[in-house]
Amino acid sequence: MIAHQSSFRLSTQGNTDIIDITHLVEQIVRESGVTIGIVNVSCKGSTLGITTLEYEPGAVSDLRRVLDQIAPPNQFYAHNARWGDENGYAHIRSAMMGTVKVFPVSDGTLRLGTWQQIVLCDFDDRPRDREVTVTTLGEVG
Amino acid sequence: MIAHQSSFRLSTQGNTDIIDITHLVEQIVRESGVTIGIVNVSCKGSTLGITTLEYEPGAVSDLRRVLDQIAPPNQFYAHNARWGDENGYAHIRSAMMGTVKVFPVSDGTLRLGTWQQIVLCDFDDRPRDREVTVTTLGEVG
Amino acid sequence: MIAHQSSFRLSTQGNTDIIDITHLVEQIVRESGVTIGIVNVSCKGSTLGITTLEYEPGAVSDLRRVLDQIAPPNQFYAHNARWGDENGYAHIRSAMMGTVKVFPVSDGTLRLGTWQQIVLCDFDDRPRDREVTVTTLGEVG
Repeated sequence: MIAHQSSFRLSTQGNTDIIDITHLVEQIVRESGVTIGIVNVSCKGSTLGITTLEYEPGAVSDLRRVLDQIAPPNQFYAHNARWGDENGYAHIRSAMMGTVKVFPVSDGTLRLGTWQQIVLCDFDDRPRDREVTVTTLGEVG
Repeated sequence: MIAHQSSFRLSTQGNTDIIDITHLVEQIVRESGVTIGIVNVSCKGSTLGITTLEYEPGAVSDLRRVLDQIAPPNQFYAHNARWGDENGYAHIRSAMMGTVKVFPVSDGTLRLGTWQQIVLCDFDDRPRDREVTVTTLGEVG
Repeated sequence: MIAHQSSFRLSTQGNTDIIDITHLVEQIVRESGVTIGIVNVSCKGSTLGITTLEYEPGAVSDLRRVLDQIAPPNQFYAHNARWGDENGYAHIRSAMMGTVKVFPVSDGTLRLGTWQQIVLCDFDDRPRDREVTVTTLGEVG
């Protein structure tokens, strides 16, 4: 059993930019040498989310629209009133979606569906640099 | 420390069929021999969710109704328009709920509340066969 | 590799009491001796959630307000009708948010953002005593 940890950085446009990070996670899982186990995909911060989605423009725009209904950018947020920020909606979306997911690893690869990609959703109201941490635990060889 | 992985299949009715899978997960945890650790419960796909719920008909129907409000089946989805599908709502529900959860294992058993069951929610618009992967990591003996 | 498990208890006010538990989790991670790995933060029950949030009064009240819109306390719930309960809304919020999150551990500490705290949200309609289980897996020394 080992625990292997690596990270990668990416730049986002913010404003619910939804980015497919599957291949970057897959590469780190391969580097870890873990054949059976789990992989934790996590990003620091309180204005982003990590989840899975069929990564095609239709589903991406649908997810944006539903999130706009759950926590609209342009309504009152006590967070904004208190701090002069405009990203109150982003904090709520992040708390609802979560900033981390954990997937099984089988035969040395991510166990995901064909139409299922791991996405980082950057809810913040401006471009951001993000660091995604990938921790793989399991049996090797 | 070991990593043990096993899976089971189940047939669903789709249409937000909510199925209690606690006993199937519990059985695999027992087979693993892990006494202290965690168990990852995951299902491939982009039109389902895994979470916990008090599994009684009232809470099950309440969850369905709230999901119908968050992502109604019969409104416009760009995913449907683009692909001729009718399960756009299912993709959104899956991205919001997540397709995986991770629970603690103590004394060789799942650490859940008495009124807390692990459920698979199949949001797709038709019956599906699903494979649930259960990965248990931890100390044995 | 080790799996270390410990727990702590806390009293909540219920009614979507949102409590910062970061320092209690951090202390257990430190006790575990794990330097690289993951930590699973979980609480038994079907009327609470665990997530992350910038823990300041504005964001806390914003999260409460959005949850009040998604699953209002004072509307019809089949769970309430069936059992004479008044916490039907709490079950739905718990199923949507999840009762567990898993974070990376790097250099012996929780990998969280500066403005990102781990919070327990007690949705139940009365004060509760809760037990949070913290399971740390990874390499030591």
